[in-house]
Amino acid sequence: MTSPMITDPDPLSPQELHLLDAYWRAANYLSVGQIYLLDNPLLNVPLTLAHIKPRLLGHWGTTPGLNFIYVHLNRLIREQGADILYIAGPGHGGPGMVANTYLEGTYSEIYPGVSQDEVGMRRLFKQFSFPGGIPSHVAPETPGSIHEGGELGYSLAHAYGAAFDNPGLLVACVIGDGEAETGPLAGSWHGNKFLNPVTDGAVLPILHLNGYKIANPALLARLEPQELDTLLRGYGHQPYYVEGSDPADVHQQMARTLEQVWTDIQGIQRRARREWSAERPRWPMIVLRTPKGWTGPKTVDGKPTEGSWRSHQVPLANLAENPEHLRQLEAWMRSYRPEELFDQTGRLIPELAALAPSGERRMGANPHANGGGGLLTRGLELPDFRNYAVAVPHPGSVDGEATRTLGGFLRDVMKANMTRFRLFGPDETASNRLDSVYEVSGKTWEEALLPTDEHLERGGRVMEVLSEHLCEGWLEGYTLTGRHGLFSCYEAFIHIVDSMFNQHAKWLKTSSALHWRRPVPSLNILLTSHVWRQDHNGNSHQDPGFIDHVMNKKAGVVRVYLPPDANCLLSVMDHCLRSRQYVNVVVAGKQLAPQWLEMDAAVKHCAAGLGIWEWAGTSEGVEPDVVMACAGDVPTLETLAAVALLREQFPDLGIRVVNVVDLMTLQPQSEHPHGLSDLDFDSLFTRDKPIIFAYHGYPWLIHRLTYRRHGHANLHVHGYKEEGSTTTPFDMTVLNDLDRFHLATDVIDHVPRLQEIGADVKQLFQDKLTEHRRYVRETGQDIPEVLNWRWPFGSGERSG
Amino acid sequence: MTSPMITDPDPLSPQELHLLDAYWRAANYLSVGQIYLLDNPLLNVPLTLAHIKPRLLGHWGTTPGLNFIYVHLNRLIREQGADILYIAGPGHGGPGMVANTYLEGTYSEIYPGVSQDEVGMRRLFKQFSFPGGIPSHVAPETPGSIHEGGELGYSLAHAYGAAFDNPGLLVACVIGDGEAETGPLAGSWHGNKFLNPVTDGAVLPILHLNGYKIANPALLARLEPQELDTLLRGYGHQPYYVEGSDPADVHQQMARTLEQVWTDIQGIQRRARREWSAERPRWPMIVLRTPKGWTGPKTVDGKPTEGSWRSHQVPLANLAENPEHLRQLEAWMRSYRPEELFDQTGRLIPELAALAPSGERRMGANPHANGGGGLLTRGLELPDFRNYAVAVPHPGSVDGEATRTLGGFLRDVMKANMTRFRLFGPDETASNRLDSVYEVSGKTWEEALLPTDEHLERGGRVMEVLSEHLCEGWLEGYTLTGRHGLFSCYEAFIHIVDSMFNQHAKWLKTSSALHWRRPVPSLNILLTSHVWRQDHNGNSHQDPGFIDHVMNKKAGVVRVYLPPDANCLLSVMDHCLRSRQYVNVVVAGKQLAPQWLEMDAAVKHCAAGLGIWEWAGTSEGVEPDVVMACAGDVPTLETLAAVALLREQFPDLGIRVVNVVDLMTLQPQSEHPHGLSDLDFDSLFTRDKPIIFAYHGYPWLIHRLTYRRHGHANLHVHGYKEEGSTTTPFDMTVLNDLDRFHLATDVIDHVPRLQEIGADVKQLFQDKLTEHRRYVRETGQDIPEVLNWRWPFGSGERSG
Repeated sequence: MTSPMITDPDPLSPQELHLLDAYWRAANYLSVGQIYLLDNPLLNVPLTLAHIKPRLLGHWGTTPGLNFIYVHLNRLIREQGADILYIAGPGHGGPGMVANTYLEGTYSEIYPGVSQDEVGMRRLFKQFSFPGGIPSHVAPETPGSIHEGGELGYSLAHAYGAAFDNPGLLVACVIGDGEAETGPLAGSWHGNKFLNPVTDGAVLPILHLNGYKIANPALLARLEPQELDTLLRGYGHQPYYVEGSDPADVHQQMARTLEQVWTDIQGIQRRARREWSAERPRWPMIVLRTPKGWTGPKTVDGKPTEGSWRSHQVPLANLAENPEHLRQLEAWMRSYRPEELFDQTGRLIPELAALAPSGERRMGANPHANGGGGLLTRGLELPDFRNYAVAVPHPGSVDGEATRTLGGFLRDVMKANMTRFRLFGPDETASNRLDSVYEVSGKTWEEALLPTDEHLERGGRVMEVLSEHLCEGWLEGYTLTGRHGLFSCYEAFIHIVDSMFNQHAKWLKTSSALHWRRPVPSLNILLTSHVWRQDHNGNSHQDPGFIDHVMNKKAGVVRVYLPPDANCLLSVMDHCLRSRQYVNVVVAGKQLAPQWLEMDAAVKHCAAGLGIWEWAGTSEGVEPDVVMACAGDVPTLETLAAVALLREQFPDLGIRVVNVVDLMTLQPQSEHPHGLSDLDFDSLFTRDKPIIFAYHGYPWLIHRLTYRRHGHANLHVHGYKEEGSTTTPFDMTVLNDLDRFHLATDVIDHVPRLQEIGADVKQLFQDKLTEHRRYVRETGQDIPEVLNWRWPFGSGERSG
Repeated sequence: MTSPMITDPDPLSPQELHLLDAYWRAANYLSVGQIYLLDNPLLNVPLTLAHIKPRLLGHWGTTPGLNFIYVHLNRLIREQGADILYIAGPGHGGPGMVANTYLEGTYSEIYPGVSQDEVGMRRLFKQFSFPGGIPSHVAPETPGSIHEGGELGYSLAHAYGAAFDNPGLLVACVIGDGEAETGPLAGSWHGNKFLNPVTDGAVLPILHLNGYKIANPALLARLEPQELDTLLRGYGHQPYYVEGSDPADVHQQMARTLEQVWTDIQGIQRRARREWSAERPRWPMIVLRTPKGWTGPKTVDGKPTEGSWRSHQVPLANLAENPEHLRQLEAWMRSYRPEELFDQTGRLIPELAALAPSGERRMGANPHANGGGGLLTRGLELPDFRNYAVAVPHPGSVDGEATRTLGGFLRDVMKANMTRFRLFGPDETASNRLDSVYEVSGKTWEEALLPTDEHLERGGRVMEVLSEHLCEGWLEGYTLTGRHGLFSCYEAFIHIVDSMFNQHAKWLKTSSALHWRRPVPSLNILLTSHVWRQDHNGNSHQDPGFIDHVMNKKAGVVRVYLPPDANCLLSVMDHCLRSRQYVNVVVAGKQLAPQWLEMDAAVKHCAAGLGIWEWAGTSEGVEPDVVMACAGDVPTLETLAAVALLREQFPDLGIRVVNVVDLMTLQPQSEHPHGLSDLDFDSLFTRDKPIIFAYHGYPWLIHRLTYRRHGHANLHVHGYKEEGSTTTPFDMTVLNDLDRFHLATDVIDHVPRLQEIGADVKQLFQDKLTEHRRYVRETGQDIPEVLNWRWPFGSGERSG
């Protein structure tokens, strides 16, 4: 061992050691009880099968370690007044967090039925992993938690997200040696290079090496100690080691080490806050090496169990068939000496209860873990987004870059909320044209600075790292603790965090139903550099499927918006930044493109979620011959260009243009609160006219949303069908039949009276496509007719 | 610097240095030419705007480094006879790989139009990132590549996948300092703990620190050298450093270092292959620190460009508006002195051409990068899967565990293919009941072994690591080099690799269209521990959406199978293991469940993809009153139980049971080659009878697949709707309305004549559900009626 195992005198007096250990035994006792018992919670009578759950579920292996850490953090809180948020990376050790929050009293305050007495303890045991009860993981139902841990990999990213802009907070993050093998966790160690010791709190990683996963040794646990130490120092930390299996010894080590770690952190923060220091601190971390299933059965059926993967879940099973296992279970539970821990009513004895912190210092009651508490979840200070409007004298008369316009708004949102709004992205803030924010704050950079660097800043509020996992994880941790933010991402690469989105959406769904959980700010995702403008990067950068992925989650927690221009984007984003408990997905391009709506019209349009653009169509007040619908900026452009072609060719054709901003409006009302009634849907889309729908993403999604609508049989959707390549922007639409000529042709094919008279015009459009294909392959550019196209009608005129 | 910067005498003679540098200049010249030039490829006349592409695309920054490495690897191949596969993690440096494979001759052999003369060079330049030409990334179109690099993070995982079971191969893997920030790459360093020096090849990571990403410094490049060195040693490597900006000096360093690295690798392999050694080798790696955009413009418009993020893409832009930029470009290109490199016809001069290896030793022609060559892509030796059949005397008469049955087959597949079949999974092979494979081979483990370990083995063929990213990435690398494998994964967590699947599917789609690319074995994914049996782990483990994700990709490269029992699973898996160029997704449970089809019937059923189960229904030969369709094992069970309830209650009801194994059959023929004709579809599902469809996943998918079918208006799909919790297996189906009682009720609601007479029966089903809910909350178990349910009719009987 090259690094300190601290060897100062024992910090715990015999009496304190005894009490601390007793508290830990109480937590372990309650954990085992949750896994096994239906009744007889205090073991007042000998254990029989009647007291045992019929189905044994839960994870014992990691739990004693989680309990051990919790108990020692309690001591740090009491002795030092620390404000600590506890993140259990091995979230499947749910019994441990439940046991500890029960012991400290928060559990019963939130769930009075689970009282601190024998009746409550029986309920505590029965409910665990039981139908109608609570999950086996550290779930939203668990007080003090912002992290589920069912899908491994995100604990440390969540921890950093929680620590940003919380200078008084210490986030203790337990990382299991299983989770440590995942990519996202391996990348998360870099979080320490984004933590500012002046304005942020501290993160204390506690790498818990209990040696085994479900069925295998863990990679990090089996490294030679020297190699592990080198790795952790390479991650930028000062590691401290707490190792052993004798509780008395390990208690002393842990108490001593936490005191040292606290001193280190205080020192780092004090130095940094007193005097600007260019040196990045080496934050401390703890390696806790204890047996898996510590204090559980040493062997079961002659096989090693404590200290083995056999402790991972339920070490003693099949109790009905195996009376010896039942006897072993009873001996195990009695080894914690419950009679010394709880009084006859089932209440924790006062000497032990006194070990828990009080009030909001209890980790189960820490306001940061519950939306940041009342104070922090107040809304953002938002400037009036209308002030950033692009002037649009009439539709299509000016060009604008939607995200650049948004950047000005975000700059001032940031300025007005300098301690509770951050922008996250993988190295793309400027590429996505949001760089106005740099007028207010640079990008966080805690490593060395060079004179040639631009927009880098200690404690900057723009978080750029080439890891979508970190961007998403940090923002999740930031919003779950009550702060606000936006993650801007290339559309194709947001799939990297599909599963993180899943878990966050599930967390929001469950927590929305808990009366005691405060609503947290929505997680806002801006997808720009989208599929239609990845003509230069090609096929690998083209994928609009995240919307499909999002739409599988519960209607109550997901929102998808496709603003067609800059003013609509401003309106949508203002709405998103005010919202709570959603994942908002906004898709908007960054390229120069025609602007359609002046601000008042944009606000009205976005509030409705969709609407008829009377100025674009030719059927005001009457049923049209065809409905041309569009969702997304490029589909809107191509639709309007198709409308212009058709109006020129068929002046008396009745065209209605419907633009959709909020995809959810298409669903039945029964499926989504934003869904239109059938009556409203019919009044927009008609019941029997052809609907040519140009959609941003995979076309099937529109069918999926509308298959129960009256007009569905007449619906023809154009969208991305995986025909991407390295080419020009317009050619991307041609390759996928989303271009103006294909759309207009589809109208001719589906409006009965045009089918007869439209042959020549169809040929004309075919010729245009042929001309395009030849031109683009010769010159590498789109035909001037397309490049220079402008909406030819103004806002009020009608040509037909 | 604590680690070796080797200082032996210069290994390159002045003449060899001159030639090597000239070859590198040629590659750089061709790279710049691809980004900029339409014409005048040899600069025979002064450069004018007419020679410049109208749209400048591509990434210069990383390219000179990629070229530098390629040139030096060529030398290693020539001098040592090394067999090297080149993986360009910074795949956006496409011009570099294209330039080098052109110089060595492979490019022109594959694409004769791009010949090694002036005409060919003009084509080479024009086609790059040009409509109708080639992508800007290292794409399937690029000879010698198995890695696109558009989405960053997977280069090192691909490298290890390629090296497994290729003992003579050296995989040189260039990792950009941007990619190094991603989670998947950070986790991939652990690959060295799974590489067996006896039976596997070597991986040489080359960390290319050019300092900058698109807009920021790179984290690793800005670390203090000591901290970086510590990190890389912690990753388990022996790092060597090659650093500088003076080409002559860096050439000598690189040549010297590659010689040293080669000696190290040879030594490691020789020792390991001669004598068994318990010690895990510390494989060498290289850190190459050179300026971004090396040899490009030093400054542009007065701003530092070489050695800055400004070199990332096109350092000189807007040439039309800025004549100085055009002059600078010409000076830059002429700085490579093309007249010394190419003869007047445009051919590389012989002295330089001689520097390239020959034949299949050229990295662009390495057979490993093209499906492993003809030899390696021969099919697997497959035992007859029928030999593993579960005996099913009549439907539902026996129970079986589908994946355990599969395990026996996989064991013997492995045994017959001990150098070209591997099983991958995140710590779950035994949990997924595939552990029969351990009879043939253990799990790879190259760290320390303890006496208590089970099924761990040096060079084992089961790859377990708690990282879905590594499992997927290794298997991709393994199949792209012509070998076979299966990735078994919890269904919910396969979303972790959504984006990796995307990229692989896109790779397969594009490469399928290239005449010279050999078909590679399919990537097989087995999703078990699926949504319906995650009652114990709860909500976070419940997500069947990967199927939806897969279905967005091109029909030509994706297949999804839902075998209803063990024999069907065997038949499906045999088919998947024989197939090429697909991603096969197979969903099958691991729990004990009724078996339906004897083997001959299973083979026939799976070959058709779907079919009527006459033995289950009551309408043989006639149109039924209702079609009860099902896809997936649990939906099949619940459907048959619902059929049994209905047959009991309404003996004369005409029920047809249709089971779907191959989801693609539901799509129109125009959408997928497996799609049924409308005639066939109607003959199975009827045109007008109610169809109650019990589906494994999100119900909307079935609507999406069938919305154009005649019977679609009568289709009622039950599936997972995000109502999951910690509960019992049957309660999971109840929560989502997929249980037998809901299904049977839905039949009553949709068969007109039952609507009148079925009220009492509906009430009966309601009562059953109430009884279930009460029972499960009291006992934690499902009602015995459900637990003990057996198909009551045998195979031929009819009750109605």
